[in-house]
This record gives sequence, C-alpha cells and structure tokens, in this order.
Amino acid sequence: MDNVVLAADLGGTNLRMAAVASDGAILHTARIGTPKGVSPEQLIETIEQLANECRSSIGISAATVGIAVGAPANINSDGVLQNLPNLPTLSGMDLKGDLETAFDLPATIENDATAAAIGENWLGASKDVNDSILVTLGTGVGGGIIINNRPIRGIDGTAGKIGHICVEPEGVPCGCGSRGCIEQYASATAMARMAREAGCDATVSVDVYNAAMQGDPRAASVFQSMGRYLGITLAGLINALNPEMIIIGGGAAAGWDMFIGPLDAEVKARAFSEPVERVKIVRSVLGDDAGILGVARSAFLKS
Amino acid sequence: MDNVVLAADLGGTNLRMAAVASDGAILHTARIGTPKGVSPEQLIETIEQLANECRSSIGISAATVGIAVGAPANINSDGVLQNLPNLPTLSGMDLKGDLETAFDLPATIENDATAAAIGENWLGASKDVNDSILVTLGTGVGGGIIINNRPIRGIDGTAGKIGHICVEPEGVPCGCGSRGCIEQYASATAMARMAREAGCDATVSVDVYNAAMQGDPRAASVFQSMGRYLGITLAGLINALNPEMIIIGGGAAAGWDMFIGPLDAEVKARAFSEPVERVKIVRSVLGDDAGILGVARSAFLKS
Repeated sequence: MDNVVLAADLGGTNLRMAAVASDGAILHTARIGTPKGVSPEQLIETIEQLANECRSSIGISAATVGIAVGAPANINSDGVLQNLPNLPTLSGMDLKGDLETAFDLPATIENDATAAAIGENWLGASKDVNDSILVTLGTGVGGGIIINNRPIRGIDGTAGKIGHICVEPEGVPCGCGSRGCIEQYASATAMARMAREAGCDATVSVDVYNAAMQGDPRAASVFQSMGRYLGITLAGLINALNPEMIIIGGGAAAGWDMFIGPLDAEVKARAFSEPVERVKIVRSVLGDDAGILGVARSAFLKS
Repeated sequence: MDNVVLAADLGGTNLRMAAVASDGAILHTARIGTPKGVSPEQLIETIEQLANECRSSIGISAATVGIAVGAPANINSDGVLQNLPNLPTLSGMDLKGDLETAFDLPATIENDATAAAIGENWLGASKDVNDSILVTLGTGVGGGIIINNRPIRGIDGTAGKIGHICVEPEGVPCGCGSRGCIEQYASATAMARMAREAGCDATVSVDVYNAAMQGDPRAASVFQSMGRYLGITLAGLINALNPEMIIIGGGAAAGWDMFIGPLDAEVKARAFSEPVERVKIVRSVLGDDAGILGVARSAFLKS
C-alpha cells in the first residue's frame, strides 16, 4: 500500500488537487474554479469536495498521509495566510490549523512559488541542481529560492518574495505598498498594462504575445522592457546568490522567445562574469504541476 | 597547547594579521600598509613577514593549524582572486595555493565581507541569530549572507555580492560593468562623490559627515540619498530572504545617525510588514576585527 498526499494548488483561476504518490506519480487530479470572496469555512468545504473525489478515485489501495496546499500568499511558519491581493477574504486564515481539524491529517502549507521551486527541484528542471531560483510570472511575480536542495524560508517563513524587489525606485505603485517592484514590470498583469499604456488593445498577456507575433512594434517593446527589467533583477540575484540555475515559470513564461533575448543581454551586461557563465536560465519543466508536486514533497518530507 | 590560526585581512589601506585562538581570542596583531601594485610573490612575502611577527610573539605555546586571508575580491571555491578593483595586480592570483606552498599549512580564503559576516555570527552582533545579512560600506559595498549559521557561497563561491544589486537601472556607471549598483550610492567612495556633485569640498566620507554635522544641507542630503538607496536595496533583501538581522559595518557606517532614519523609513515603506517587524538593523559589533575573526573561524571549522 503506497502512501499518498492530497496536494492542492490554490491559483488565481483554478483550485486544483492531486493525489500524489511518494515517488511523485500523480494518481488522480481534480479541479474547480477558485471560489472568490469566500470565507475560510467555504474554502475548506471546497477542498474537502476535491479531496473526496481524489480519495474515491484512488480507492483504499493507498494510505493518505497528509493534506497539502500551495497558496498565493505570504505564509508564516504557523501556516497562516497573509497578503493575498486576489483572495482578500482569506487574509488571516489559519489554513494549516483548519485543514488539520477538517481532515485529521498533518497539513503542509507553502507559498505557491516556493512550492513550485521545491517541485522543480524534486522532479523537474533543477532536479540535479543544489542551488536554484524559481521565478513565476503570473498574476504577480512569485519566487522560490533553493539552497543546498532546501527552500530558503527565512525566520518567519516569508522568504522568497522576489517579485517585490525594487527595480525602479520611483516606478509604478505596487499592491504591496512599495513602488517599482519587478512584479509591476514582469508579471502577466503588468505586461497587459504596459501594452495598454503603449496603445495596444490587450486584456491579458497572451494578447500582447499575439500582437508581438503579428509584428506590432508596441507589443514587441513590452517584451523588450519586461525582459530588460527581469534581467536587471535576476542579475542582482546572480551576484548575491551565485545560483546554478534560474527557472522561469508561470503563464507569461509562454512569451519566452520574445523576452529571453533582452533578459540575457541585461544579465550578461550587469552580473559578474563567473556566476553569469555558470547560471542556466531555463523554463519550468513541470508547468502547472510544479506547485502541487512541490507541496506534496514537503508533506512527504514531514511524514 | 592551544591551536592558533594566523588570520589576515587584506584591506584597501592596511594588511592586518592576527594570531587567533580557537575561542576567538586575539593573541597578537600585526599590521602594515597594504602594498600596492605588487606581484603575488611580493604579497606572499609581506604576509610571511606579518606571520613571523605573530608567531614569534606568541611563541611555541600554540600550534598553528592554518593560515587564512580575507580579501576584497571575488573568490571562487579554488581560492583564486578575481575582480579586485583596488588591487588589480593580484587578479588571477591563486592565493590559497600560494599560501599553502609558502606556509605548508592549510589555507582558507574568504571574501572580506563574507568573512566579516562569519565573524559577527561567531562572536559579534549576530551570534545568537541563524539568518543574517552583513553589509559593509567601505571603498565598495560588500555583503555576506548567513543562512542557518552558514555562509551562502553559491555554486562557485562568489555569492554575497550585495553591492552589485542594481538600485537605479540607468544610474551611475559602476566599476563592475553595470550601472546603478547600490555600491555607487552607499559606499564611502560614493558618498564623497555625491557630496562633491552637490558642491561640497569632500575627499572622503568623513568629510561629508563632518559637513553634515556642521549643518551643511548639501552634506545632509547625501546621507538622505544614501540612506534611501540602501533602504531600497535592503527592503528587497528582506522580502527575498526574511532575515532576522541586517548588520551594517565598514567605515561609512560611522555616519549611522545620519542615514539610519531615511534607511528605516524606506525599509518600512517598501518591505512586507511581517519580515520588517522581525528584522533588526544594527551596527557591526566587531568592527575591523570582524573579517579576521571570521576567516579564522572558517579555518578552524576546516581544521
């Protein structure tokens, strides 16, 4: 009888759950649109629904040893959610405590980008790499830092907030209260905003990509600017941490061909030569499954 | 018979050496002006001179178990020096190998700021703290990052280059090849430059401090600007690493009273509240001895 973790990814659009085996095999996947404006109790009920589906699908051949959730939040060591700009009604929720009460299982909560970094380190792009940084370009810019195959959590568990490194001191105001965070220049949301500012008719980042592919110079300039700013931030991290690999994931990573040129140029122009020669900048291998696999891995390591 | 490490700090102005006991006691100190424009061979001869002085002073009551040097350079895992803007003739020197040949002892080489971070973590400001960042404000801006009481070295040993995180994308050109590095706004050198740009008669950073103390608003604005830029950079590191402590050392830290106000204000305005409430921003406790003690500690840990 194999052990299984029920691992969920609470995304801006979908809440996905998978039954994950200890070798990383995904035995069953369930998904539902992320419930908006709900109370903590309602979120737990939705997670229970998905868990029941997963459990009945895999049957009694596996023992569930944990419940795990990756969330787009600042998560401290107690598993309490803070700073969820897209899910504000969950701010302050004791997700770990509530899950343990509901499931009578040990619960593991990770920031979604940290979870994705752990997942890539377990089974994806960085599986043979000790030191890596994962950057997710989605609604916001998330980050997960892995040193010696362990995530950097910081003293309160809030580390990894790469998206809120400042890249333009007097730049665009950010939801975090600061200005000029890299999130305001490299997230999918920011790319659509920058395209609109340039006069494009863009609602989401894929519109910018399509416009750039069709030769719209305004859309192409958004990728130039985004690649340049992300390169500046990554150059600083390369100088500070000398990682072996930087992994770029999230929805806006789909524009890779458009931004990797200016990004690489900026990194090479700004960071020291030895760490630049070393670092591999690559795309996520696990895609949407990185977070689910990562948080499952964290749960297995505790079980 | 106690064990001793002969530990040196190769500074921009002085080359200092101390005989350090395994409990951190400094048994003897020797110093000489840093030889400029010398060959690797001449540097080794100078280090031998200081070592002989230390050894004859402490006598045969102690066994020398290692030779150790902190240097203002990028130092890879092999102990080779790179990027020494103030000591260019030593670029490419295999300091570790040369010292081992000369002394017939295990040699330990650390970047000077990483050494200072290790020293403070051993016996100074951060001795009861697991996760800390040390920033030195000297000729340049150096950095050392300690996570779980161990320095972050990176895959090649070049990590910690906090001074070359960009804080102003189109800012002042930096000796590293980039622009707008925090080193160009917060080093002692930068402060004197900014004061001259503001019309002050300043050669070194202490001139700026004295002018500000005498009420010169141009000098005071240099500290405002320097504190603001350093605060922006530290806010990013607080978001990314959630450290328990940030230690500020180096010569320009003497202007603490002048820059800590704007620095604190910027950190509080820009970083997430939980890690900001946690982090203590403090001055170096060990001062000039931090680097010597830190590199001695590294040598003892290997012996």
